Amino acid sequence: MMSNANIDSYQLHPIGIVCSELTLRKACPHQETDEGAPEAWLEIDPSFSEALEGIILGCDLIVLTWLHQAQRDIMKVHPQRNPENPLRGVFATRSPDRPNPIGLHRVKVTEIKNRTRIKVDSLELVDGTPIIDIKSVLPKTASGSNK
Amino acid sequence: MMSNANIDSYQLHPIGIVCSELTLRKACPHQETDEGAPEAWLEIDPSFSEALEGIILGCDLIVLTWLHQAQRDIMKVHPQRNPENPLRGVFATRSPDRPNPIGLHRVKVTEIKNRTRIKVDSLELVDGTPIIDIKSVLPKTASGSNK
Repeated sequence: MMSNANIDSYQLHPIGIVCSELTLRKACPHQETDEGAPEAWLEIDPSFSEALEGIILGCDLIVLTWLHQAQRDIMKVHPQRNPENPLRGVFATRSPDRPNPIGLHRVKVTEIKNRTRIKVDSLELVDGTPIIDIKSVLPKTASGSNK
Repeated sequence: MMSNANIDSYQLHPIGIVCSELTLRKACPHQETDEGAPEAWLEIDPSFSEALEGIILGCDLIVLTWLHQAQRDIMKVHPQRNPENPLRGVFATRSPDRPNPIGLHRVKVTEIKNRTRIKVDSLELVDGTPIIDIKSVLPKTASGSNK
């Protein structure tokens, strides 16, 4: 079964891009710390405007992105890019470097323009990062977790 | 920029598969309710065993999957597949049907065998679902959220 998993592959098509004041990867705050991150716009392709219906001002969302500057062949990292932190498998971290470099971000909607431009409170991503999915946040009661 | 986003596409390679007693999509519990889900095994390809180092018994993880039975051309759904719920854009739901059908699941590790077989407490996925990423759960203090 594993050999099948290796042979199969799946094609992702971005649904939009991140517009941010952050232009360098190394200037981006780390998710694993409380460094904070600037506001950003999610610019969604108008062909997906119907799929955004129900997203309203003030709501929380999960945004999935494709971390296009990440390295896919790295198996271990020093967490928070700090060489003093012992090496750790990437699947036990939030490192952007991983086999399938998908970013996971929880945000709050602070403005909506023309249905497909969504401003969010805080996003630690460089300008131009492709957006691949948006999801509602589950209520805390569902599965006992808020993800 | 949107036209570039449409032209680009990215290739996902599964890192493993889900082994579950669930064999039919329609029998899978909904994420948006408290229906519960059975235990399952994450069978990770041994070529990624290094990337799993740091994952230990009892820890919480985020698992990202490729919902291979989903439909990618659906823009609106009745949440929880209940026709009485008004239609809603898929990006404002947890529907598996969406342009890039990535599943997001929070789980707890209950057993680890041979480094690459990881048993988790609860997973609402059919047997054979491809796994594409695993991430640590952020502490609640980071960005004020636990995702």
